[in-house]
Amino acid sequence: MPDLDTVVREICEEMAARPDRGTVADYIPELAHVDPNQFGLAVIDGDGRVSAGGDSETLFSIQSISKVFTLTLALGMIGDRLWRRVGREPSGNPFNSIVQLERERGVPRNPFINAGAIAVTDVILSGHEPREALGEILRFMQFLGKDPSIAIDEKVAASERRTGFRNSALAYYMKSFGVIENPVDYTLGVYFHHCAIAMSCRQLATAGQFLAHNGLNPQTGFSVVSAERARRINAIMLTCGHYDGSGEFAYRVGLPGKSGVGGGILAVAPGRASIAVWSPGLDEAGNSHLGRVALERLTQRMGWSVFGV
Amino acid sequence: MPDLDTVVREICEEMAARPDRGTVADYIPELAHVDPNQFGLAVIDGDGRVSAGGDSETLFSIQSISKVFTLTLALGMIGDRLWRRVGREPSGNPFNSIVQLERERGVPRNPFINAGAIAVTDVILSGHEPREALGEILRFMQFLGKDPSIAIDEKVAASERRTGFRNSALAYYMKSFGVIENPVDYTLGVYFHHCAIAMSCRQLATAGQFLAHNGLNPQTGFSVVSAERARRINAIMLTCGHYDGSGEFAYRVGLPGKSGVGGGILAVAPGRASIAVWSPGLDEAGNSHLGRVALERLTQRMGWSVFGV
Amino acid sequence: MPDLDTVVREICEEMAARPDRGTVADYIPELAHVDPNQFGLAVIDGDGRVSAGGDSETLFSIQSISKVFTLTLALGMIGDRLWRRVGREPSGNPFNSIVQLERERGVPRNPFINAGAIAVTDVILSGHEPREALGEILRFMQFLGKDPSIAIDEKVAASERRTGFRNSALAYYMKSFGVIENPVDYTLGVYFHHCAIAMSCRQLATAGQFLAHNGLNPQTGFSVVSAERARRINAIMLTCGHYDGSGEFAYRVGLPGKSGVGGGILAVAPGRASIAVWSPGLDEAGNSHLGRVALERLTQRMGWSVFGV
Amino acid sequence: MPDLDTVVREICEEMAARPDRGTVADYIPELAHVDPNQFGLAVIDGDGRVSAGGDSETLFSIQSISKVFTLTLALGMIGDRLWRRVGREPSGNPFNSIVQLERERGVPRNPFINAGAIAVTDVILSGHEPREALGEILRFMQFLGKDPSIAIDEKVAASERRTGFRNSALAYYMKSFGVIENPVDYTLGVYFHHCAIAMSCRQLATAGQFLAHNGLNPQTGFSVVSAERARRINAIMLTCGHYDGSGEFAYRVGLPGKSGVGGGILAVAPGRASIAVWSPGLDEAGNSHLGRVALERLTQRMGWSVFGV
Repeated sequence: MPDLDTVVREICEEMAARPDRGTVADYIPELAHVDPNQFGLAVIDGDGRVSAGGDSETLFSIQSISKVFTLTLALGMIGDRLWRRVGREPSGNPFNSIVQLERERGVPRNPFINAGAIAVTDVILSGHEPREALGEILRFMQFLGKDPSIAIDEKVAASERRTGFRNSALAYYMKSFGVIENPVDYTLGVYFHHCAIAMSCRQLATAGQFLAHNGLNPQTGFSVVSAERARRINAIMLTCGHYDGSGEFAYRVGLPGKSGVGGGILAVAPGRASIAVWSPGLDEAGNSHLGRVALERLTQRMGWSVFGV
Repeated sequence: MPDLDTVVREICEEMAARPDRGTVADYIPELAHVDPNQFGLAVIDGDGRVSAGGDSETLFSIQSISKVFTLTLALGMIGDRLWRRVGREPSGNPFNSIVQLERERGVPRNPFINAGAIAVTDVILSGHEPREALGEILRFMQFLGKDPSIAIDEKVAASERRTGFRNSALAYYMKSFGVIENPVDYTLGVYFHHCAIAMSCRQLATAGQFLAHNGLNPQTGFSVVSAERARRINAIMLTCGHYDGSGEFAYRVGLPGKSGVGGGILAVAPGRASIAVWSPGLDEAGNSHLGRVALERLTQRMGWSVFGV
Repeated sequence: MPDLDTVVREICEEMAARPDRGTVADYIPELAHVDPNQFGLAVIDGDGRVSAGGDSETLFSIQSISKVFTLTLALGMIGDRLWRRVGREPSGNPFNSIVQLERERGVPRNPFINAGAIAVTDVILSGHEPREALGEILRFMQFLGKDPSIAIDEKVAASERRTGFRNSALAYYMKSFGVIENPVDYTLGVYFHHCAIAMSCRQLATAGQFLAHNGLNPQTGFSVVSAERARRINAIMLTCGHYDGSGEFAYRVGLPGKSGVGGGILAVAPGRASIAVWSPGLDEAGNSHLGRVALERLTQRMGWSVFGV
Repeated sequence: MPDLDTVVREICEEMAARPDRGTVADYIPELAHVDPNQFGLAVIDGDGRVSAGGDSETLFSIQSISKVFTLTLALGMIGDRLWRRVGREPSGNPFNSIVQLERERGVPRNPFINAGAIAVTDVILSGHEPREALGEILRFMQFLGKDPSIAIDEKVAASERRTGFRNSALAYYMKSFGVIENPVDYTLGVYFHHCAIAMSCRQLATAGQFLAHNGLNPQTGFSVVSAERARRINAIMLTCGHYDGSGEFAYRVGLPGKSGVGGGILAVAPGRASIAVWSPGLDEAGNSHLGRVALERLTQRMGWSVFGV
């Protein structure tokens, strides 16, 4: 097997040189300003060794990657009852489609499309003030990322809130079927804020370790979730983690992963490593273009695909 | 790790005793007669050792499981050009939906829904007589299954042909967009016949070994496909192999798998085993009910999920 | 031709006796309390003669019938530019469907489905305070209905506002495409209030006279709209006025008409009469059951269908 | 009222001079050859007086206009039982959409979209040889058009048959739900042939007279259908006769009408006239561009809209 440090360094060099960088998301004004020439990669193996390169210490907006962690939190709170409010099938539609909600009476297909993540946020909020719920999510990220400085980028949250009309539509639509229980403004407030958490690749790879190691943090020995739950979250990441590009990501990369429109991807090589990559330019399905290319390189060279040794 | 023979035996005993057996497919008249009280399981590990139980030697109609092998054949014939005619994303719709075809101008979402498998069959047929194409598919199955007696159940093929109006609709619809190149009758004739191949769990598990071992048959050393292609076929099986129940199968079983309405499932534990299970009763999504339950047990007890050690 | 007074009286007697009364709308709590055993009918001919019977003086919530008048107002304000914001084709979907909005990028199919009427309300609101816009709509109704006592039922408006999540979804969805220009809360506030206007059959038939007489009120001689515009509004009423039951209404009644979930229907016999009918029980498509039956009787006996002498 | 002959002559002159002629249908190869510079108009009033101009004697392929007459025939055969096999609501979708069929389990929305007309043809075929059914349809057209020379253009029928894959898809799809009872090839054979009937504007206007005059031919006094049925067929023409441009046609022309992709339109001014217009160039919704413009002129100048005097 090739040396991980070498592989990470070579990937970072290749990505820095590539001219094809995708398109920075423009529908959240604050994100549209981000320089597309950035690329960061951080890989943490089972011994806690970090191989990182490029802009791996730069903070970026994790956006939908937060949905992995809010799913984890909500499952911790109400367990399998969560699945009454959200499904776990790929949607076959773009990330913000409302068509499926009409056909399935307000129950989103999975927790990683926008509607599903809003429903999950509503579960976390239940019986709390928005501020408390948000505090809980943030403390969870600080705990998993081992860094109390992890914070919400308020400018991004405000920007998203001002322009998030489509998410408001999704939320009101679900509320009309009783799938959202709290006031829509509260639920969306928490949702927009947890999507606006800013993290570096290193912090994100650290936070994802429990998914790579049967629910445990292998350094601290802390159990975040049971082994079964970790496997199941990984399964949902693989089938649903890249919106309508999930099949493509599985086909090319072969790892469970979750992308965000900020350009980040968290990927999990079970038993081997937690990986975070970031490059702001997106492909047509709304996933980081170079992030996916870099992960394809990494799994090919390391032999980490879950679909073959 | 528990002993595989023991696990297989215990699963077979449990399944034989369960009262919940799903519903036998009734839309193909010949299949409606099958006794729902049957259950078979065969597991072949990397050393070629077979652990089998129940009705593992009984022949059943593999139906859509043939799509894994026709996909393999078509990729061997025209390589990645295949992806101009069919996608590789989960469909988010039932197996025989025509809605998606209208939205995406006749290009099916993946090779494992009916429309996609018909398009793949059309590629195999190209430039041949239906009889020749069918002969090629059958010889491929005999070669992989190491059994020259593997044959088509003509009664099932005829039954399917007589009642397969919805598949005719899919085929003509694709032809109206130029996605089907041969006469629809020819393509459907080959399609209905390869779906009517009859195999036992043991034969099917044998045929699937190359997918579990990087494209090689580990006993003979024959290379069927490249390691990369094996991984990619597995990826499509995981995201699309169980129609609109693919997410559920990944969530519960955690292995690439392909089901058929005859009640069979071929599953692949990469690097470990090729698995075939059969029980005729189906769940709501059209997948074998006890087949899925049995595979869930097997992966839990053997620790074979691709999503965690 | 039979005597109109006699026909109206006989219809009122028949309707009072019928046991099939449809189902009172329950999704707006205030409307759910209405007694289903009510029925009213008022017909005003070209000489201003009123034939009325049953509960023709009882106030009811006009609900979507207000959309005819807001369309008239909005066309008066911005003319054919309105058609950039809303189409004029039947929707082929239930009144509150959001599917079509996704396919057609936020532009509703016609001004009589909820989404379209919200877009029309947004046009009327433009540049005004909600209170002013609402005042203008109300004064228009009082002018047309020749009764300054016509008012909004605030309890219905409040009830609708509290439970109108689906309309909020439609509005935010359109806003995400720029079709709604004002704050969603403002536009919906005006929308919920004009739907909550309470009128009697007599007032409503009076208000609809201009549509039956080439845009003129035949008694006062006041021109409300041009003859061409009156014809065009009638055309939209005929093709789109009864949601997904518009074809059925045209087939059975043969007149332009607009229904509301309060159980009212305004119908227009061009050159002959303005007609208002009310019975609270609805059919499956959300239109007044006995209202439609009564209109079918009326047009058959009077020979008023636009589709034959 | 202006003189009809003068109005017809002026419209023909204006249409001959206009540069905007729409696009000739190219999906049926035989129709693609037709010269777009042709325009014909024939109007027959209640006294049987014909006002005609342009290419009003030229034969053209009536295409979907035949659906008005097959609907009339099928209603004559099985009456209101027809409505178990086809609806009468506007579709809100293009003429050849299959999406709606999936949602409504194989029952087409109305008899004027392709799927609906195929279902109606299947009713006419029932229990007959295709040749007999076709003979009956043709004789009906000859009788109504008062011309035994009216015939099928076999080249168009063959051309349509060879390329009508989408119609095959619709038919097989309906057959999968049991809505089509005869062999699909038979039903489609009859369908393709009756769409290929060739008629002139004069013949077509003659054939449509019964719809303008309460089911009677006003010259012969023959009753084709009851007055009620004539009104109802007109109603369906108005709401559904121009596919997804039906609302637009009602809005601009204000008459019941049925278009065909050959460029013809049959329109009915109840109590006044039967009108046929033809110009091969189509608009985006598949309806004759100049045909619609000419009818708009005609109804405006003659005051014939059903929506106002």
